[in-house]
Amino acid sequence: MKAHVYVVSKQSVLDPQGQAIGNALRKLGHAEVAEVRQGKYFILTLSDALSTSAAHAEVERIASGVLTNPVIEEFSFRLEEPSR
Amino acid sequence: MKAHVYVVSKQSVLDPQGQAIGNALRKLGHAEVAEVRQGKYFILTLSDALSTSAAHAEVERIASGVLTNPVIEEFSFRLEEPSR
Repeated sequence: MKAHVYVVSKQSVLDPQGQAIGNALRKLGHAEVAEVRQGKYFILTLSDALSTSAAHAEVERIASGVLTNPVIEEFSFRLEEPSR
Repeated sequence: MKAHVYVVSKQSVLDPQGQAIGNALRKLGHAEVAEVRQGKYFILTLSDALSTSAAHAEVERIASGVLTNPVIEEFSFRLEEPSR
């Protein structure tokens, strides 16, 4: 089973890297881009022995405890069921 | 309208950062994590004047031309319709 974890800085936290990308895009002619925020993306491949609910709990633990700094970041994730 | 763009190195490209995270997770007791790949995540806020199909084409151009190095990376994206 695969888990896709998305980590992004909280809306209240300044994101200079995202702002730089936004400025660059507008200079390149993409005027309709109002804002860019950059975050991190993790693809975790989990043992197929794990049930969906166990995988959900495990990914939640990994994302909140290791992949995210809870002071400045927040995360979301989705599980991708194995295609059988 | 928001666009969520996910950029990750191709499967054939070594991802030492992802491997390091995978090793760290296993040492922390998350033995069921078989593999980790790290990528980048961008949230683009686009002008609401853009139609869905125009936004789709624009995000495809931005992702393939600016946010992704096509030699070693690949991208996917999804559009999030504005809630009215």
